[in-house]
This record gives sequence, C-alpha cells and structure tokens, in this order.
Amino acid sequence: MLGLMMDRQLTITSIMEHADRYHPDTEIVSVTNDTPRHRYTYAEAFGRTRRLANALIDYGIGAGERVATLAWNDYRHFELYYAIAGIGAVTHTVNPRLFPDQISYIINHAEDRLVFVDPLILPVLEKISDDLSGVEAFIVLTDEENMPDTDLRNAQSYEGFISRHADRIDWPELDEKTACCLCYTSGTTGNPKGVLYHHRSMVLHTLIGISPDGLNLSVRDVVMPVVPMFHVNAWGLAYGAPAVGTKLVFPGPKMGDGATLQALIEEEEVTYSAGVPTVWLHLLKYLAESGKEVSTLKRVIIGGSACPRSIMEELEDSYGVYVNHAWGMTEMSPLGTVNTLKPGMLELPREEQYAVRMKQGRPLYGVEMKIVDDDGNELPRDGQATGLLKVRGPFICSEYYREDTPSDVHDDDGWFSTGDVGSIDAEGYLQITDRSKDVIKSGGEWISSIDLENAAVGHPDIAEAAVIGVPHPRWGERPLLILVRKEGGDAGRQEILDWLKDRVAKWWVPDDVVYVDEIPHTATGKIQKTELRKRFKDYVI
Amino acid sequence: MLGLMMDRQLTITSIMEHADRYHPDTEIVSVTNDTPRHRYTYAEAFGRTRRLANALIDYGIGAGERVATLAWNDYRHFELYYAIAGIGAVTHTVNPRLFPDQISYIINHAEDRLVFVDPLILPVLEKISDDLSGVEAFIVLTDEENMPDTDLRNAQSYEGFISRHADRIDWPELDEKTACCLCYTSGTTGNPKGVLYHHRSMVLHTLIGISPDGLNLSVRDVVMPVVPMFHVNAWGLAYGAPAVGTKLVFPGPKMGDGATLQALIEEEEVTYSAGVPTVWLHLLKYLAESGKEVSTLKRVIIGGSACPRSIMEELEDSYGVYVNHAWGMTEMSPLGTVNTLKPGMLELPREEQYAVRMKQGRPLYGVEMKIVDDDGNELPRDGQATGLLKVRGPFICSEYYREDTPSDVHDDDGWFSTGDVGSIDAEGYLQITDRSKDVIKSGGEWISSIDLENAAVGHPDIAEAAVIGVPHPRWGERPLLILVRKEGGDAGRQEILDWLKDRVAKWWVPDDVVYVDEIPHTATGKIQKTELRKRFKDYVI
Repeated sequence: MLGLMMDRQLTITSIMEHADRYHPDTEIVSVTNDTPRHRYTYAEAFGRTRRLANALIDYGIGAGERVATLAWNDYRHFELYYAIAGIGAVTHTVNPRLFPDQISYIINHAEDRLVFVDPLILPVLEKISDDLSGVEAFIVLTDEENMPDTDLRNAQSYEGFISRHADRIDWPELDEKTACCLCYTSGTTGNPKGVLYHHRSMVLHTLIGISPDGLNLSVRDVVMPVVPMFHVNAWGLAYGAPAVGTKLVFPGPKMGDGATLQALIEEEEVTYSAGVPTVWLHLLKYLAESGKEVSTLKRVIIGGSACPRSIMEELEDSYGVYVNHAWGMTEMSPLGTVNTLKPGMLELPREEQYAVRMKQGRPLYGVEMKIVDDDGNELPRDGQATGLLKVRGPFICSEYYREDTPSDVHDDDGWFSTGDVGSIDAEGYLQITDRSKDVIKSGGEWISSIDLENAAVGHPDIAEAAVIGVPHPRWGERPLLILVRKEGGDAGRQEILDWLKDRVAKWWVPDDVVYVDEIPHTATGKIQKTELRKRFKDYVI
Repeated sequence: MLGLMMDRQLTITSIMEHADRYHPDTEIVSVTNDTPRHRYTYAEAFGRTRRLANALIDYGIGAGERVATLAWNDYRHFELYYAIAGIGAVTHTVNPRLFPDQISYIINHAEDRLVFVDPLILPVLEKISDDLSGVEAFIVLTDEENMPDTDLRNAQSYEGFISRHADRIDWPELDEKTACCLCYTSGTTGNPKGVLYHHRSMVLHTLIGISPDGLNLSVRDVVMPVVPMFHVNAWGLAYGAPAVGTKLVFPGPKMGDGATLQALIEEEEVTYSAGVPTVWLHLLKYLAESGKEVSTLKRVIIGGSACPRSIMEELEDSYGVYVNHAWGMTEMSPLGTVNTLKPGMLELPREEQYAVRMKQGRPLYGVEMKIVDDDGNELPRDGQATGLLKVRGPFICSEYYREDTPSDVHDDDGWFSTGDVGSIDAEGYLQITDRSKDVIKSGGEWISSIDLENAAVGHPDIAEAAVIGVPHPRWGERPLLILVRKEGGDAGRQEILDWLKDRVAKWWVPDDVVYVDEIPHTATGKIQKTELRKRFKDYVI
C-alpha cells in the first residue's frame, strides 16, 4: 500500500525558489576578473538566472543537452548552475587545470554545444579550439566593455548573451531523476570518466550535507567555498547555502591568494569555509607574514587530500578555527564522510582526540560503507583490518556517462568500488590507507604507501616522497621509496631508513631509497605513480 | 535525460540500519510502567526490533496491514515504530487521550488487526472492546511477570509475543512510497481523518528536521522527546535521533511530571527537548518549588500551540535554556516552520527579537507556503495581510485515508488548505492569527479571535478566554468575549473592555463579555468553539 503524501519532486529548481522566496535579501559577494568585490542578493541572482535560462532556451539548448563551464567560483558561475539545470539541461563543469588534451577529450565526449568560459581561462581554450569542433559558441564570463579579443568561434560576452531576455520564466516541472550536472573524474590512468548527477541526488546530498554532523550550515553562517565550483559541485555548498539562506562569498580566481582570502573573511564576516589543505597553507602563510586576523572564521572543512596535522593545529591553536576533516569522491557527489567527534570523545586527551580527528570521518545517513578482502568478503569494523572500500547510497554514481564497456568499479550487487583501501573502526570512522592500485602486496600482507610517504616526509630534509611496489622474487613486491630533498637537505639512504624504522612496522621499511629532482603530478596535484612505475619498472632491489 | 545515480530508496529501514551500524553503543533510556529507568543500546533495540518483526510476520501481518499502538514514549514503542514499518506494514499510532468513541472510530476505520497497548492505557480499551470487533488480539507492553489481568481478546504480553523469535531478518526492499505510518487528526468537528505517511516522506522530514535551522540535532546531543510518539511521529525525533546517532531519553507515562523530567535531564545529561507549552509549565513549576537545576539542557522546541512569552523568558532568563517556537500539523508530518533568527536579528534589542520569536517561524526548504484571500488570490508577504494559509511539499498529505468524499482541503492545484489564517512577513516568518473557521468577519474585515483571547488572558484576573463571532445586523459578525475568572478575580465587563482598548484595534474590541465557570475543550486541549457557538447561537449583542 502506498502512502498518501504529495508527489513533489526534489529538484535544484526548488532550492532556488526557496531561496528566492524566503531569503531574497541575502547577499552573494564575488571576486571576478572585472570587479574586485561584486555584490548582489539572491533575488537579483535568480532574476538574472531566469534571464540566462531564457537566453539558453532561445539559443536552442534543449532538455538533456550539455553546456560546459570553465569558470572560477563567482556569481555568474552560480547563475549557470541554476539556469542550466533549471531548464532540464546539464551543467558540465570542466576543471581548467586539467591537461589540454583532457579538456578536449571531455568537452568532445560530453558533446557540449556551448562553453561558458572565464576571461582568465580563455587562453587554455584558444590553444585547443581546433579540437573542439562540436562547440558552437564560446560565451565569455564578462560584460561587453571588458570583452577580450579572441578568435574563438562565435565568442560573445555573458552580459550580452543574457541582456535581451526577460527575467520571468515558468520553470519546467522536472522529474527528480533528470540529469542536472556532469563532472569528469581526473583519474591517474585512462581517459576521464563522466559522473552524471541528477536533481534528486543533488538535493539529497544537499540536505545531508547541511546537517549538524555534516557541513553544519545555518542561515546565521557566512560561507566562503574555496573548493572550486568547477570540480565536484564545490562539495555541495553552492546548493546548501541557498537551501538554508546562507550568505555566500566567492573568491573567484583568487582561491590561492592568502591576502584576498583574509580580506574577504574579515570584511564579509565569513564564519565558515571549505577547501583542500593547500588553500589553508596559503592563508596561514599570509596570516603569519602580515600579522592579520581571521576573527569571524569559526570552522573550516578540509578534504580533497589528507590534512597535515600541522595545518589543523595552527588554525585551531593560533586562530581559533575548528577543522573538520572530510572525505569524498567525484562519484559520491562528493561527500562520503565528515569527521565530527562523538560525545565521549570530547573529553579525551588531545592526542587521543587527534588520533580520531586525523581519520577521514564517519559516514552520514545516506552513505553505506564496507571494506572487503580480495574475494569480496566483508572485513570486520575493528580499526585494524584494511580492505577495499565499497560504498552505496542515493547520491553515489551507478555507472559512468557514455562508456562503451561496463566499468569494473560498479559491482553487480549495487556497490561502487572506490579504489581506496582503508579501515573502519567500531565507531564508524574511516581511515584511508592507500589507493588499491598503490598498495604494496608483500608476502601476502599489505603495506600502505601513504603511511610510508607520510612518515618519510616527516624527516626535516625531505620535501616529497612517493612509494611504489617493485617486483621481488620472494615477497612478490617490496616498497621502493622515491624522495625529493628539501633545498639544503642532505639525508642519505641509511639515515632515512633508520628514521622510518622508528615509525613503521619493521617489515614495512623500504628495501631501497632513490633520490630524484622532481616527482610527477596530475593536474589535480596527485602523485602520478603510473609514471613512476614506468620509470622504475626494471629496478632491481 | 536521466542521471546515472544509484536508485537507493529512502526508507525507515535505512535509518535503522545506519544507527545499528554506526551508532550501536548509543543508549536509549526509558521510563516505563515496569521499570523506573530502562536502558539499552541501539544495537539491542534493533535486535529486539528484528524479533518483533519476525513475530509480526509469523502472526500473519502482511504488507500494508495496519497495526495500532496506544503507548507512551518508551523503548517498546520505539521498536514498534521500526518493526511494523520495516516489514511494509503500517504503524497506526492512536492518541489514548481521545474520547472513547473517537478511539473506536479510528481503530475500526483503520481496520487494525493487532493493538499494542500500554498497561496504563488498558482501562481505556477495556471500556470499548465490544466496539472493536475487528481487532484480533491485544498485546500489552510489558513482560509476563507484570502482565495485568484483563478480559481483552487474546491478550498477551509483548515480551511473550516476541520471545520465541529470531533476532535476524532480511528486511524487504521497500519502494520508498510504501505507507509506513498512520495518524488521525483530532479535528474539532466531524470524524477524525487519517494521514497516511510513506517512507520517503518520513525520511525527507527527518533530514530537513535535523538541519541546523530545524531541530538542529547532532550526535553530541542527548534528546528527550516530550512530545508524544502517539501523535504525529513525536515531531520526527524518533527517526531523527537514530539518523544522527543521538542518545534518546523517553519519559514514558511521566511526560507531565516535572520531577521525573528534571531527574531525567540531570541524570541522563539531556541537552535538548521538545514539547507543548504545558509540559514546560509543569517543569518550571517543579524547578521553582524544588530549587533544582536543568544544568545540561540547552534548547527546547515548543510547538503544538503558541508558547506564552512568560514560559520562554523564564526558561531562558532563569535556566539558560534557549526556546525555538515551531509550528506544524498532522498533515505536515508535522514540521511546517521553526523559528530561528536570521543573522541581523541577533543584534536587535530584546523586544524586537521577541516580536520575531513569538511568531511561528520560517518554513525550511521542503515546505512551500502562501496566504490567499477568499477568492484564492495570493496575498502579499508583508507581515500585514492575513489570509488562509496553504502549504505544499514532499511531506505534506495529498489526501486523507479512505475517505469516500474528496476533501475540500486538498486543492486541485496541489496545495493543502491548512485551515489556519495568518500573515507571512518579508523575511518569511509566519504568524498564525486564527483558525479560518474561528475568524470573525466584521464589516468585510477580519478580526483574530486568538489575538483577542491572548490580550484578555493578559489581564491578571482572567484564567481563560474564548472569542466567537455572533451575528450582527450591520457588521455581519461581531466578537463576543467569553471568560473564566481566576480564583479571587473580580474584574467586570467594563474593566476588561477598557483593558482591551489599549491592546487591540478599537474596532476589534468585543461588543460584550460573558463570564462562565468553564470553557469546553477537545481531547487534545483545544477550545471547542463549536460547543460555544451552539451555546451562544441566540445571543443578541
């Protein structure tokens, strides 16, 4: 028997309408290429969003068609998020930091008809425009006055594109499973793969995201998303803020600029922010040099990669900013876990609290997790056993967009194999110890390359470390430690091995150490272990 | 084009499984008829829930069948919430405070096969058992040892009912629109009407309910629901707590007992509670008399009826307990609005803050509201215009259960007419001024009976007030004020009218005042204006 409740659909449009109606005067503040501090209200934002939607419809963008954005976090990107999804089309956010051939690949694979691009990112597209034959026009995120010279096809300014159009629209009533946005994973191997979110998954991710043990977002916060809107939906903040009526502060192209971040925080009274560890390094460096404050900032969420404890401690001890670790994936919308403490833990001594807080966190309702062994058997949640992490839930990707061959990460039983290896403790806290393809299998046991790298980087002479497995006749594989020294550092092989002996299990200590000038990275800053494996494939320990 | 996200259903079962997996050691503490302080964990609760589910299946309860509960807030009622819904059947919570003929009506109308009943409520059913011919058996919420003598059909103890059954089960995979619970509205006219919730509506209500501007429930809270589980899902707290892993404290039959509430708060470290205004009066009275503290309690949600300012002030000023007003309806699951302040309001002077805080609150995402005039035209959101309140959203009732004639409160355009009259201000705050059938239409304008009653009760001699409209040849209707004096109070007609002149618009001042010994009430404590209208139908002003 079915219940008798209204069949209202969970759509991004409904988030917009909520903010428009109940929080019309809430501000959105942006840094853009044109303006050091653009400010307007939700009412104005959604008025312009309706103009943009009418412009897209008038142009001929139909339901399900993909529209690309290569843009920073600012108000025009925000308008694109809502207008494209609102008309039933798909916002394809493209990471401008990808390699040019990856950008070409994904724009062509998605068959984007229009590309909206920030003036500062224009040069990236100009270099590859010949490859983008399917793109009909490029809309530059600026006004007529600031429109740069470009030979990109049918280039025009955003303000020109929307100017002739009405700010009234009857939004279509969408099925909640209608696709709304598309983001490609920047894997370290193979071509990028598209994750196609739908309205329902985004709304559920938003509701769970704003909850007190999630991002904990209220109308009384002022939120500055430093995590980019061009990748994984800015962790959901561009939806969460309107859903609760929170003031938004967008740093635009200045996400890596400590001075701009500090000024925005102080002057706009930012209480809350989120971003990858590097962002906070930039900010902390600026604060130390300038002696300035971030007096209104209370909390930051740090994810994207594991946050060094030193960043957490400096933010908390010197600036009173509480840090929550979080973990997720493009395939998970992205929130998988957030690290908030359970009640008894608040009374633990500092070191024991940090032992919990350095983990990736607990899954919120809506995310199911398990770790399995090589045969797929579930492993105990005891904080000791490590296995491949699988996840399941209503905002987790079920298959990749337009892939001819079924992916081996989407299991028949409905779980997604994250490719991460980790443990889950009895309280539900996840600790990622490795990527499954990076784990070193030695004598039937697993060695965590991440743990070894972290231990090596703890040595004062070492700038960066990478550990890969190399073949070994007896053990199958043994770890090889690849190091970049800090300027002036001179620690030799034996000194490093001795250092590690005190810090990891004895049988984990690498069999050899090599020094290199540079370790290769992907566009999103991850170590490219495939390159290292190629380079050291004949290495004999 | 549809998105490619997992098709996981939003079910109550998934809330249970989340708590069982990630918060197994969190406690549920209950006062019951048998035990002054029963305590166990979520893991134990859901183990017993699985036993109960197996017992229900073994008994022959099938998908969609209704099972009644007449029970206080305690652990066995909690188990019933999850076991009945989990097997795809419907938990029909019955308010034991209804009149006996209403209880018979709704149990028969719902066609409940089994009735689970608290020992203390047994006498209510014994009196009407002859009318309940469709009920096959009565399960008493106690163990064999404490099983009372009763001649109810096939009576047996709850512990006996579940004891032989396994604590393992494969829960069925339910469609999220499967009915899960049923609650009848206790209207002041006509027969009660059933609201049939589904899993999806309950999960969405839970997610929106726990949000920071809603009930704001985190794993670090300890929550004591004093709002009954026998009516409107205890405002969602019995789902919200497991969804985030919050410790639950159930006061059982002692909901109106200030001493028990105080002891539970102090000893179980309750941080958070919710209930109708009367509950807090009992608690405040006990605190004043005993000199005891509620030192851990930080917040309470007060709803059900408008909270007198004196209760809010005493809780906050004397005990440091912050009060949030909330408003809802059985048809809304029930949360409609919660009163949390917007950022600028925190700096307002006390009186201006209270002017906002005494309103019913703002709708959260998921609830749409509008006020309309008699012709259905939407009225401005200016805090001045008052009209009939209509609502819409994914956890609002679309039609009543098994009603032969379509209801006039479910509009063709998909909105629900609440029957309340109020205003909405520019910030979205709702103020209920009347029930539409109680509003007095005088010379084409509306007079709020609630405002008049509140003003009259402010007089030190007056214990209770009711205002009804009586026919008037010139104005259509004029207000008649019906008063009950406090013991020793002797204010006469003219003194009361003079008192009101300073407090309401001149043309609102009632044309006459009558004194009575008692004002009639419904089972849920609402003034029975239909009775008053009958009694004063020939009154000539």
